[in-house]
Amino acid sequence: MSRVTVRRKTIRVTAAGEIRRPDTLAVEEPLEIRIDGESLTVTMRTPGNDIDLAHGFLFGENIIESADDIVSARYCAGTDAEGHNTYNVLDIRLRVPTILPTRRFFTSSACGVCGKTSLDEVRFRTEFRLADSTLTIDAPMLSTLPDELRSRQAAFAVTGGVHAAGLFTRDGTAVVVREDVGRHNAVDKVLGWAVRNDRIPAADLVLVVSSRASFELVQKAVMAGVPVLAAVSAPSSLAVDLATEAGLTLVGFLRGETMNIYTEAQRIDVAGPYGGLSDPRWGPTAAISRQVR
Amino acid sequence: MSRVTVRRKTIRVTAAGEIRRPDTLAVEEPLEIRIDGESLTVTMRTPGNDIDLAHGFLFGENIIESADDIVSARYCAGTDAEGHNTYNVLDIRLRVPTILPTRRFFTSSACGVCGKTSLDEVRFRTEFRLADSTLTIDAPMLSTLPDELRSRQAAFAVTGGVHAAGLFTRDGTAVVVREDVGRHNAVDKVLGWAVRNDRIPAADLVLVVSSRASFELVQKAVMAGVPVLAAVSAPSSLAVDLATEAGLTLVGFLRGETMNIYTEAQRIDVAGPYGGLSDPRWGPTAAISRQVR
Repeated sequence: MSRVTVRRKTIRVTAAGEIRRPDTLAVEEPLEIRIDGESLTVTMRTPGNDIDLAHGFLFGENIIESADDIVSARYCAGTDAEGHNTYNVLDIRLRVPTILPTRRFFTSSACGVCGKTSLDEVRFRTEFRLADSTLTIDAPMLSTLPDELRSRQAAFAVTGGVHAAGLFTRDGTAVVVREDVGRHNAVDKVLGWAVRNDRIPAADLVLVVSSRASFELVQKAVMAGVPVLAAVSAPSSLAVDLATEAGLTLVGFLRGETMNIYTEAQRIDVAGPYGGLSDPRWGPTAAISRQVR
Repeated sequence: MSRVTVRRKTIRVTAAGEIRRPDTLAVEEPLEIRIDGESLTVTMRTPGNDIDLAHGFLFGENIIESADDIVSARYCAGTDAEGHNTYNVLDIRLRVPTILPTRRFFTSSACGVCGKTSLDEVRFRTEFRLADSTLTIDAPMLSTLPDELRSRQAAFAVTGGVHAAGLFTRDGTAVVVREDVGRHNAVDKVLGWAVRNDRIPAADLVLVVSSRASFELVQKAVMAGVPVLAAVSAPSSLAVDLATEAGLTLVGFLRGETMNIYTEAQRIDVAGPYGGLSDPRWGPTAAISRQVR
């Protein structure tokens, strides 16, 4: 049986009646990441692409700078009650022994004590200047990417219960798509793939997520040098604040032919007679009608 | 300005054209919880009901057993660059000094190293037997609760970007509803309210969440003695496993007149001539048509 999805008995109740039937669920299991034998963090994830996940997580936390910093990544011999390897403990050996962060890892993000501190911390830690990225993408092309993402979501199709993240080129080609019950894990898997395949900084790629855009997703995109983050749902206030500071283009509510551009709109080309959003006739309160093809 | 929502400039792109306008976003800010001055965890939350949040979090982590275990909860005098109190650091003084968990708090949940360990841990820690709860709720009544929840979501109505959790009686009365950018925070705020108002174990209440049902939400419900957890979206595999072990009724995909009942279906009364799901004529593969009124 696949470890990505699993079947469980359920009673489906509808206005027409009830049916007992199996339902397919997304698997959620803990993954413990150890560094040279010492426990660093546990994340609840959907099994699969764990090595990518670990690379992405450690890169986002600034514990590694490239895949070369990791000598080996192996599942430990942890077993369940029946003696089977759980494949839920991953031991990473680093090229250079590193003093792990003494601060705790946090409930739902990897931020500092307050917004200001966190923003400073990210600005300090990332070496990539998003302002150097010359990437632009057509709004109509961007509008197609959520469907592209969805079409590659094998687990969502059968469970309706997993998030996805994907890196795309400006012509809409999917470079890598990953699913997970945790949206931050899906992003870690995608960016970890980029780390392992020498695609960092990912200055020529767009990161699309099926979820809301929180602070931590913006942080991960900025760390990886991705210039455009587009989310199907809403961004948070801190996500917009960090995107503003970092020079990231943040798009939210990317649905059908519509989207909200919160920051750095010059990277989104809206087709039409006026030649894009950088048109000087755009005032701060202007409402010019132009067609998105 | 409210700290729950905030307005930011955005460019709204639709097929009809583009408009520059302000958009209302859910505020996301870090909350650091300190115990007797020592930092315990940081969670990214929507400000508001922080005391409830802290109570719920500490209760779910088994650091407190009741509100009496907390002597005081005060915002520290942390200030931002302009010298304003951030109200993002909360210091809790406990009645009896407690040795804090030495393990780290984890990326997205508060589980142990592997599924098995986590399940054992919860079973060990909770003092409430859900089997003792005699609560039942009509399926048609349960079907109305997501709309009830939504109607009380002030922030969602204007942002589209926050989760909600609510405790309801079996007749559909909302006891407490809370919103947050993090679904675990929304649940902590609700259950923390219950802790502070002597409603633990909440054996006569139903917990409804606007989100998916993950392991950690089931864990929190079980810890609080809530017998029914109903989620608008999908559960994960581990959520169903833990609900099975703990005797929690877990409902997913609660939308319109439909729902999936994954565990302990005897607490959900489906109206109709056959007298409910506990009808002995129900076989494991039976498909009996009966109306949900």
